Amino acid sequence: MVLKAGARLRAAVVGTGLIGGSVLLRLHAAGVDVTGWDPDEQTRRQARLAGVPTAERLADAVAGRDVVFLAGPLPTLPATLVEVAAATTEDCLLTDVGSTKAELAAFAAAQGLTSRFVPGHPMAGTDRAGLAAALPELFTGAAWVLCPAPDGLVAFRRLVTLVTDVFAARVVPMAADRHDAVVALASHLPHLLAGALAGAAHRSPLRDAVLTLAAGSFRDGTRVAGTPPHRTGNMLRGNRDQVLAALAQVTEFLDELAGALRCDDADALTARYAEAGAARAELAGRRYEEQVRSFPAGAEPAEVAWLYDVGAAGGHLTGCRVVAGTVSYLADLPSA
Amino acid sequence: MVLKAGARLRAAVVGTGLIGGSVLLRLHAAGVDVTGWDPDEQTRRQARLAGVPTAERLADAVAGRDVVFLAGPLPTLPATLVEVAAATTEDCLLTDVGSTKAELAAFAAAQGLTSRFVPGHPMAGTDRAGLAAALPELFTGAAWVLCPAPDGLVAFRRLVTLVTDVFAARVVPMAADRHDAVVALASHLPHLLAGALAGAAHRSPLRDAVLTLAAGSFRDGTRVAGTPPHRTGNMLRGNRDQVLAALAQVTEFLDELAGALRCDDADALTARYAEAGAARAELAGRRYEEQVRSFPAGAEPAEVAWLYDVGAAGGHLTGCRVVAGTVSYLADLPSA
Repeated sequence: MVLKAGARLRAAVVGTGLIGGSVLLRLHAAGVDVTGWDPDEQTRRQARLAGVPTAERLADAVAGRDVVFLAGPLPTLPATLVEVAAATTEDCLLTDVGSTKAELAAFAAAQGLTSRFVPGHPMAGTDRAGLAAALPELFTGAAWVLCPAPDGLVAFRRLVTLVTDVFAARVVPMAADRHDAVVALASHLPHLLAGALAGAAHRSPLRDAVLTLAAGSFRDGTRVAGTPPHRTGNMLRGNRDQVLAALAQVTEFLDELAGALRCDDADALTARYAEAGAARAELAGRRYEEQVRSFPAGAEPAEVAWLYDVGAAGGHLTGCRVVAGTVSYLADLPSA
Repeated sequence: MVLKAGARLRAAVVGTGLIGGSVLLRLHAAGVDVTGWDPDEQTRRQARLAGVPTAERLADAVAGRDVVFLAGPLPTLPATLVEVAAATTEDCLLTDVGSTKAELAAFAAAQGLTSRFVPGHPMAGTDRAGLAAALPELFTGAAWVLCPAPDGLVAFRRLVTLVTDVFAARVVPMAADRHDAVVALASHLPHLLAGALAGAAHRSPLRDAVLTLAAGSFRDGTRVAGTPPHRTGNMLRGNRDQVLAALAQVTEFLDELAGALRCDDADALTARYAEAGAARAELAGRRYEEQVRSFPAGAEPAEVAWLYDVGAAGGHLTGCRVVAGTVSYLADLPSA
C-alpha cells in the first residue's frame, strides 16, 4: 500500500484500545510501516508483545509519518489532535475514529487543520474494550464515515483510497453534522433503549425471573447495555442535542404503539409494525448499483455535493483514484 | 419416552407453525407416536412431505392421545382448547405454547379444565414463521414456563418430565399472572422498543443513511421488529395491562438517562449504565446449584409454594419423577 508513488506508507495510530488497536493490527498485517502509541504503559507493552512496533512517546510515534489515526476516549481527541498536529508536518494526513464528528470537525477548523484533518468514524465495535479485544478484520465490510470538507478534498481522497484498499471498508461520505444526526438514530438510540430496558429489568422486583426468561429479544435488545459505561456516556454526551432530538422521534413512535395497544386497536398496531418491518426488510436485503464518477480539477464544489448525495442516499464509496488531476470514485448506490 | 409404564406415548400437536411445528418435529424425532394438525391445508401437506403423521381433521388428530399441545395464533387458543377438550377423555393431558398465560388459564379454569390443562410457554422463537421455519432443536436449553395449579399438580408433573426429557428444555414453574408480568419485561418490551426504533428510523428523513450506518447496535436492537406484525400485535394485546405497566418502568429509566444526558451529568449517566450492565453481566454468567426436592402425597400446598419460589428466584427444573406417591424434582437454583 502506497500513498505516494514509490514509497512505502508510513502510518501511526495514537490510542490503541479496541478501535485504534484494530486499526493498528490491520495496518501492520497489510504490510504498512506503522507505529502505535497509547498513554497506558501496559497497553504499549501488550502491543510490543503482539509484535507491533510501539513508541514510548507520542512524538516519536508520529514523527515523519504520512498518516496518523487518532483514537482513544472521545473527550481526549481535541487535545490529541493539537499535539499530533504540532509533532507532524503539513503533508501528514490526520484522521480520527471517534463516534461523533461535529464538535471535533469544528475544533479542527478553528485550529486551521481542515486541509489535512479528515473526521472519520468506522461503524464497528464490540461490547469489549482494550487492545486485547482488537481484531484486524473488525472493519471488513463495515461502513466507515469520512467527512469531506470543500478545502480538504486532497486529504479526503487519499483516505478513501487507504480505507477501501487496506481495511476493505465501505466509505460513507457525509458532512460532520449530518453524520451526528444519522448516528443518533443508527447507534446512540439503540444504546439508550438497551440501557433503559436492562436498567428497568435490573430494578424490577421480578429481576431474577426476568433474566431467566430472557430469550433472544431481550438478549439482543440489551446487548450494548453491557459496553463499558464511561464509553457509552462519552458517546451520548458528545452528541447530546442530536440524541435528544432522535429520542423525541423514537418516543413519538413508541407513544403511537402504546396508544394503539391501550385502545386494543389491532389494525393500528399491525400498521405500525409493518412500518417498522419495512426498515428491517431493507436492512436485510438492500441492492446496490455500481457507479463510476469522475471530477476534473476545478470541479471541487460539484465533487463535494455529489459525495454528500451518495451518503444521503444510503450509498458508499468502494475506491478512489487520482490520475492527472482527475479524481474517479467507485460508488455503490441503492437501486431505485 | 413413556408417560404411562409400558405404553408408548401418544401425542398430538394442534397448530403446526413455527412453535407447534418445532414441537411436532421434536416429538417425532424422539420416537413419540405423534400426529399433527393445522387448519391450513398446505401446512398439513408440508408436514406429510416431511414424513410426519398428520390428520385431515382435528378430532382425528387428538382422539385417543395421552397429551395434546395447543399452538397457533394466540386469539384462537380458547376455542381450540374447548374443541380439543371435547374430543379427548379426562386422562388426556393438555398444554399450550402461547406467549401469554393469565387469560387462557382463567378461561380453562372456568371450563373446569384445571386438572388436565397446564398453561405453558416455551421461550424460544425466530423472526420467521410457519412450519418451514420449524426446528426440532428449537427448545434445547431454552426456558419453558409451565404453570402449576394447586389442583393440577398431577398433570404438571407429567409435563415437567416430558418437557425436560424430550425437549431438553429448562422448565420454569410460575403462576400464570406472574409469568405475564415477567414476559412483559423479558420479551414484550423488547418487541415494543424494537418497533419504536425501527419505525422511527423508517419515518426519518435520514432513513437511507441511517440504514447504511446501522451496525450491530441497531441491527440487534431492531431484530424482533421484523417478526410478522400480526403475531407481535396479538402477543402485546394478549398481555396489555402488564405490557403497559412494564413500559412505565422502562420509560422511567429512559427518562433518568435522558435527564442525565440533558444536564450533561457524566456521573449519573455512568451510574445508570452500571445498573444496566449488572443485568447483562448476570445474563452472561449466572451460576446455578443443583437441588433435589421431594414431596410426599398430601404436601401439595408446600409443593406449589416451592415451585413458585424456584421460578421467582430465577431457577428452573431439570427433571421430575414420581415413585410410590412421592414426587421428586431436580432443580437448578441461582447461587447466592
